[in-house]
Amino acid sequence: MDLESVKRYLEKGGGEEEDEKKQGSTIDGLPLRYFERFIMQGLQVDLIEPGRVVCSMKVPSRLLNGGNFLHGGATATLVDLVGSAVIFTTGAPLTGVSVEINVSYLDAAYLDEEIEIEAKTLRVGKAVGVISVEIRKKKTGKIIAQGRHTKYLAMTSKM
Amino acid sequence: MDLESVKRYLEKGGGEEEDEKKQGSTIDGLPLRYFERFIMQGLQVDLIEPGRVVCSMKVPSRLLNGGNFLHGGATATLVDLVGSAVIFTTGAPLTGVSVEINVSYLDAAYLDEEIEIEAKTLRVGKAVGVISVEIRKKKTGKIIAQGRHTKYLAMTSKM
Amino acid sequence: MDLESVKRYLEKGGGEEEDEKKQGSTIDGLPLRYFERFIMQGLQVDLIEPGRVVCSMKVPSRLLNGGNFLHGGATATLVDLVGSAVIFTTGAPLTGVSVEINVSYLDAAYLDEEIEIEAKTLRVGKAVGVISVEIRKKKTGKIIAQGRHTKYLAMTSKM
Amino acid sequence: MDLESVKRYLEKGGGEEEDEKKQGSTIDGLPLRYFERFIMQGLQVDLIEPGRVVCSMKVPSRLLNGGNFLHGGATATLVDLVGSAVIFTTGAPLTGVSVEINVSYLDAAYLDEEIEIEAKTLRVGKAVGVISVEIRKKKTGKIIAQGRHTKYLAMTSKM
Repeated sequence: MDLESVKRYLEKGGGEEEDEKKQGSTIDGLPLRYFERFIMQGLQVDLIEPGRVVCSMKVPSRLLNGGNFLHGGATATLVDLVGSAVIFTTGAPLTGVSVEINVSYLDAAYLDEEIEIEAKTLRVGKAVGVISVEIRKKKTGKIIAQGRHTKYLAMTSKM
Repeated sequence: MDLESVKRYLEKGGGEEEDEKKQGSTIDGLPLRYFERFIMQGLQVDLIEPGRVVCSMKVPSRLLNGGNFLHGGATATLVDLVGSAVIFTTGAPLTGVSVEINVSYLDAAYLDEEIEIEAKTLRVGKAVGVISVEIRKKKTGKIIAQGRHTKYLAMTSKM
Repeated sequence: MDLESVKRYLEKGGGEEEDEKKQGSTIDGLPLRYFERFIMQGLQVDLIEPGRVVCSMKVPSRLLNGGNFLHGGATATLVDLVGSAVIFTTGAPLTGVSVEINVSYLDAAYLDEEIEIEAKTLRVGKAVGVISVEIRKKKTGKIIAQGRHTKYLAMTSKM
Repeated sequence: MDLESVKRYLEKGGGEEEDEKKQGSTIDGLPLRYFERFIMQGLQVDLIEPGRVVCSMKVPSRLLNGGNFLHGGATATLVDLVGSAVIFTTGAPLTGVSVEINVSYLDAAYLDEEIEIEAKTLRVGKAVGVISVEIRKKKTGKIIAQGRHTKYLAMTSKM
């Protein structure tokens, strides 16, 4: 996958603004595969090169938890999504499934705070890829979360 | 927190159907803290006792990934949410923050498949709680994902 | 690998008592691949069946940490070793490398305490195996540690 | 703990060469808390500053696995030990227990290869410390393993 396509995937979440307008207003009426858009809406790609992607995002109200900071599940999903995208920048095939994701939560990110998400490949082999993802406060560089994502890449044969 | 309140939290996602109907139809217009409802809508509590919660859910179209099975980020969020809820069943205070979440992905769960989410406390100390969460296919018992969730509980003093 | 061979591997640590007697008395003089024997000496296999192994062990003085309980590194190594052994009980080839190991530490195991180590396969595919390992106090069943171990199995082609 | 003491701890493994000479030659006769010395013998501290420690080590024959490269259990123990040491450089008290350790294995380190172990604190709070540890080939910088270590620090009250 070329870098421009990875960038577009991250910034569009695989869908179009138009689709969204047509959606119904209840949770049950949400369109197919809405989840990625729901998380990534507002994400910007600041840097993209083989093996490394840096994105930024303003923490939106929809992703807050009961304590009014970025939800741990949303954080884990960003580790998943940006971690998957960085694999594609190395020319790995578009297929692949998650084997393991882990996240340490280090600080809170509040409403409208600018966060930076950096994903780096630690290893991209024929079968297994491992990515490190760090989420930081853009202003201070303070780490909000650090995680790793292991993917199985060789999907021609069964995992 | 009493068991009935934990059950209500899991099944209502902290909100009401009425609120949902009033929401706007674009992602930007989504209400505050919409994320938990978005994930948990449709979740049912099948069993709740101190230290153990079993829920079930039909995989909804909104939570699918590009491969048309339950999104890894949604799975991680279920580990977070049901794992947090089970801590409350032991009488632990409602506060607490996630320290670490990890998930191994073992199988795919497709649209409308019934899944079962079982959370068990491994340890609930004064300061640190650790929970194991397993997600299975209800029909066959086959494991879809297994994770652990570490929480810091003693929020009166700073973490 | 047949069950009897897996049992022998776990109980002998791949070596013989005779070899050990001949070794020099300094750390530098220790024989090749001494590490596994050093950890596993004293381990007994209580149950072995396809996909499940239960071992027991008395915590030896050599594996204590500065706080006089079982060292976290030794615990992680038991997750590695017994986790690898259980993969062999399913007929998986002897090859394979670790991709990820994680361990939550829940309680302390003191000198001469009997511990039980149970490893179960969560998934054994063509390429990826995932194992859950739990270490408990034999007397009370209280959990000392819980971990997961991900292995890449298909070593004919490169990882 | 002052930096010089942390350095001495890492390089001596808490013991003296003299003790070692007196030890018996069988595994059962090994001295109390021998494990840390067994792993760390030969480790050198190259850099030590508050929040960061870099060590190096030549892979010794005693720590090899059956495939003749550095054992995954030894790698996890290095994440534990060097990760614990770096916490002390920040002035945190000597007490503290491991809550979670995870390691991704990315490449093999063979006999006599020079490896570099870098530990950095991601967070040192009043109660919870999180450390990132990376193990690399000294010659090429290629990553052998990356892990995280979560510690509970506030041991005056119970965890």
